[in-house]
Amino acid sequence: MKQQRQIRQDAYKSGHGFINRYQKLIKDVVIPYQYEVLCDKVENTEKSHVILNFINAGKVLRGETVEDGFYGMVFQDSDAAKWIEAAAYSLSLFPDETLEETVDTLIDIIANAQDKDGYLNTYYTIKDKDKRWQNLMEGHELYCSGHMIEAACAYYEATGKDKLMQVMLKNVKHIYQVFMMQENEGFPGHPEIELALMKMYHMTGEPHCLQLAEHFINIRGKDPKFYEKEAKKRNWTIWGADPTNTDYMQSSMPVREQSDAVGHAVRAVYLYTAMADLASEIEDKELHTACDRLWKSIINRRMYLTGGIGSTGIGEAFSVDYDLPNDTAYAETCASIGLMCFASRMLELSIDRQYADIMEKAFYNTVLAGMQLDGKRFFYVNPLEVVPGIAGIAPTHRHDLPERPGWYTCACCPPNVARLISSFGKYAYGENEDTAFCHLYAEGEVSFENGLRLVCETQYPYDFEVTYKIISGNKKLAIRIPGWSKKYSIMVNGKKSECGLINGYVYLDVMSQDVVKVTLDGNPYFVYASSKVPQLTEKIAVCRGPLVYCFEGIDNEGDVLSIALKKQGKLEVKKWEEKILGNIVKITAEAMKAQKIETLYTLEMPGKDNYTAVAVPYYTWANRGINQMRVWMNSL
Amino acid sequence: MKQQRQIRQDAYKSGHGFINRYQKLIKDVVIPYQYEVLCDKVENTEKSHVILNFINAGKVLRGETVEDGFYGMVFQDSDAAKWIEAAAYSLSLFPDETLEETVDTLIDIIANAQDKDGYLNTYYTIKDKDKRWQNLMEGHELYCSGHMIEAACAYYEATGKDKLMQVMLKNVKHIYQVFMMQENEGFPGHPEIELALMKMYHMTGEPHCLQLAEHFINIRGKDPKFYEKEAKKRNWTIWGADPTNTDYMQSSMPVREQSDAVGHAVRAVYLYTAMADLASEIEDKELHTACDRLWKSIINRRMYLTGGIGSTGIGEAFSVDYDLPNDTAYAETCASIGLMCFASRMLELSIDRQYADIMEKAFYNTVLAGMQLDGKRFFYVNPLEVVPGIAGIAPTHRHDLPERPGWYTCACCPPNVARLISSFGKYAYGENEDTAFCHLYAEGEVSFENGLRLVCETQYPYDFEVTYKIISGNKKLAIRIPGWSKKYSIMVNGKKSECGLINGYVYLDVMSQDVVKVTLDGNPYFVYASSKVPQLTEKIAVCRGPLVYCFEGIDNEGDVLSIALKKQGKLEVKKWEEKILGNIVKITAEAMKAQKIETLYTLEMPGKDNYTAVAVPYYTWANRGINQMRVWMNSL
Repeated sequence: MKQQRQIRQDAYKSGHGFINRYQKLIKDVVIPYQYEVLCDKVENTEKSHVILNFINAGKVLRGETVEDGFYGMVFQDSDAAKWIEAAAYSLSLFPDETLEETVDTLIDIIANAQDKDGYLNTYYTIKDKDKRWQNLMEGHELYCSGHMIEAACAYYEATGKDKLMQVMLKNVKHIYQVFMMQENEGFPGHPEIELALMKMYHMTGEPHCLQLAEHFINIRGKDPKFYEKEAKKRNWTIWGADPTNTDYMQSSMPVREQSDAVGHAVRAVYLYTAMADLASEIEDKELHTACDRLWKSIINRRMYLTGGIGSTGIGEAFSVDYDLPNDTAYAETCASIGLMCFASRMLELSIDRQYADIMEKAFYNTVLAGMQLDGKRFFYVNPLEVVPGIAGIAPTHRHDLPERPGWYTCACCPPNVARLISSFGKYAYGENEDTAFCHLYAEGEVSFENGLRLVCETQYPYDFEVTYKIISGNKKLAIRIPGWSKKYSIMVNGKKSECGLINGYVYLDVMSQDVVKVTLDGNPYFVYASSKVPQLTEKIAVCRGPLVYCFEGIDNEGDVLSIALKKQGKLEVKKWEEKILGNIVKITAEAMKAQKIETLYTLEMPGKDNYTAVAVPYYTWANRGINQMRVWMNSL
Repeated sequence: MKQQRQIRQDAYKSGHGFINRYQKLIKDVVIPYQYEVLCDKVENTEKSHVILNFINAGKVLRGETVEDGFYGMVFQDSDAAKWIEAAAYSLSLFPDETLEETVDTLIDIIANAQDKDGYLNTYYTIKDKDKRWQNLMEGHELYCSGHMIEAACAYYEATGKDKLMQVMLKNVKHIYQVFMMQENEGFPGHPEIELALMKMYHMTGEPHCLQLAEHFINIRGKDPKFYEKEAKKRNWTIWGADPTNTDYMQSSMPVREQSDAVGHAVRAVYLYTAMADLASEIEDKELHTACDRLWKSIINRRMYLTGGIGSTGIGEAFSVDYDLPNDTAYAETCASIGLMCFASRMLELSIDRQYADIMEKAFYNTVLAGMQLDGKRFFYVNPLEVVPGIAGIAPTHRHDLPERPGWYTCACCPPNVARLISSFGKYAYGENEDTAFCHLYAEGEVSFENGLRLVCETQYPYDFEVTYKIISGNKKLAIRIPGWSKKYSIMVNGKKSECGLINGYVYLDVMSQDVVKVTLDGNPYFVYASSKVPQLTEKIAVCRGPLVYCFEGIDNEGDVLSIALKKQGKLEVKKWEEKILGNIVKITAEAMKAQKIETLYTLEMPGKDNYTAVAVPYYTWANRGINQMRVWMNSL
């Protein structure tokens, strides 16, 4: 049984603070900008063509001729789906008739691209109808359906309009026919539909959704040779993927037997999210245990300090334990979003701050770093060290770009960031009948379905006082105290509460008019890594609250490589700088800077001078031109 | 004009010491072992089949049917060539009738595989005669000829027998016809024949050799689109190489315009070797200047401390400046051999210890590390850090093996090490009419063509006293004082010489019965790297003489990652240990060892304990099972 569940999308309205600024940016800039991109109206970026693909698919279905056919990746449809999902969440935060009309029009276009039998995918509809369902490994048909199901759920929840929901229920019925009624043993190469089906099930109660999700989860890996057999049955491929590389697709063994997080990182965490959701839904102990193991595999051995996962660009994948290079990191933005989804579902299985800690780490560092502060450029890959001249250029560093591009051929990340930020409330707050949960600190107003209403006020993550004012209701309020906060205090109506922590949460009985004030530790701190991580031996990182800081050349005379922080050196929090990097707080660290040497190697120890190094939050890096960046610093 | 030139192969006989032990190992173990491999008689290693390829090619030429055809890489022939070259050098050191008979038999087989027109290559002769000379980019026909020319020269010099020399002169005549008389604008995708033709020219004076070498060097890069055009003319490929990747083949521009060492590292240094040889031969100032630039590009920005070059496995290639990762290093053994060849030719252009210093660095570290101490296993790739569990397994570390395999599908390195060690005298000593040059310290007897004869006695590189006894003659003796030797002394007949250095060489007038004793600095020392190398900031390495040391788990409680050396800590040279690692000297370093932490990241600074870390010479690593290894250590 779910210990608690995410709140409804419309239950949270951000107020005045960090989350609100980001959600407004999504509404004002990102959603319009991305729509322009989807309509191919932005110059000097990769072409999208996704809306034209849907229009053309509709034409093909009506027997009309199309000139420009299909363009893009086989999963191009999902860009539109994720944009609708982001727009839907944003509409529930900030009603906007024009945007709603735009979405309605796009939904009409999508509905017209659905075949009579419920099939919906522009790639196959335009290019070759006969290839449907022949290539689950590479084909992404189920993946695209999954994203469109998520869009349908979001738009239904935001507006009550069910046109897209009906389209997707019909699509699910079709998929149910194909996979449940025709002895098709296939399962998606890229998991996604499983978590989407669970969402749709929670929203509609439609039993086919649950059955189909359960089926796809259970059949995965049962026959590790499935994709090889599938490949032998057809004479075509999309990009020549290797059907024997089952780790890549998490299909080497049944999911309940899996212990290591392997393969394509986004696929992995999307799968684990669905597994965790299903485990709590049907109370499947074995599945729960598998989720626990996979969670630990990530958190204890395969995750960057920034919440980035999937350390290798080869297959956008998890590497082996402790292989966490800073400079050649992949750490895809989408993978950290998926990690947040997984963490959020793990919190439904078991209320423990470790899940919320990681969710917060991934959000404030990798997910936010995925987007330029102006909302118009995006990182797909999130290294922890960048050296111009090597990053983006050296053969092993081609994927590690020193600045954000405007769009990508494979454009999964940008709309994913938009939908995540717009739905932040769902990750921040949860509830069950008795209790309202504050997993993350998100300013604004929350109306829990259990009857509690509260307002949260805070300038977190740059201030560490969080005030909850209870507007109405009479419930338990559970507030997470983050693992990084070495000290904290809770004041209830001005009186100190001595209430202890249960798995990192403080539980308070609250009622209307109560005021709960949480004060966390706002001191900056160093982080150290296990010496099992070869690249991190003797390195230290600077953090404050949930924010990982980084050192950029622009603040440090163009050279952070020569800087070593003093091990017990003072960290000083500077004044807020509203005009720099969108309202941030810098940190300075006592350090030494090595004098330059002219040769590659030398026998004379380079001299060192005292230096004050300046750090900025990691998520703000690369907003001031191309320059060096380092998270993990040398120490002495 | 050449300032000096390598001595003849038969001018040097190793005596009693390090070089002799290695040359004996090559004779006693490596050459017989490798011959067994070439004959496919060694189990559990990659198949070679190279001798059968030659036999089969002969049969094809005689119109006989062959059953097992061709097996191996397109350049498989070169394995036999390099083995003959190694055997030839070894024969001149250690006469051996049985070995000589074996070589003679193999030469007969090779001669039988030559076509009437002089063409010699088993791949095309067996597989498809019509494909000859159509694919210079991938085809390796000129490369294989080059190695066989080197073999012919070595065997002729060692034994006076000219059968293989005649075969190859005929082959050169054929190549001359194809490339000089038929308006073929091609040039080898893999340089090698250029340096071989220069060798053959020095030995035979045959003008076609010089003309052809000059032609291949001059035409390279003149038309950067040559390989694209070539590819369009045929409908086949060997491994789908990209003809537009001209950097890979050093053909983006004419060689005289090149400034950065780029592309496949072995190709690069083989080319530069020939360029330097030609530059001194024909006194080509522009070519000399280009060689200088390319040398500096390698030495100042693209070379490991171990003399390894070509830092990336992607294309076995040079990366950009300062991209010198320890753990994902490629640093192919052959590339360091090629660097020695280049350095040796640069020394002919200009007598400067920088060339000999690098030659020595490459030899004592990367080249020797390329072979197991027992002579039966070989490294192709030479990382500076290995962590079991990551090395050889992580997607980005697949090429960095933690132990040496017995053979390779692409078996270029093992016989290359054998030929290099057996011809060490040529790199160690040089001469011109007036002067005998001691570039490297090699114990044994040397008979210079200029009339000087001397005996060198030393236990270098583990002892730092080198004695030269003049047996006969009356010439200048030039001895290099290595750059790493912070102090040195020269005694002539027991009297201290105050003679200064000219470009790192001391020049002494010597005559029969003179005894010159050189004492170098035998203190171990730390090396520091430029902070432009991201992976080496705040790291230090331990060296002694020409030897780079490394820290292996087996000497350090299984864990070198937790060790940080004290910056000004004492380095202590241990007693000689004859029974360990083939007679070596260990070094201990004052250090601190971090206490283990259980989590991936922690907010508490891990405690540290005093520790004495033990280092062994890098070339001996991975001779005691799989364990951690690190050259560049953290410092504090």
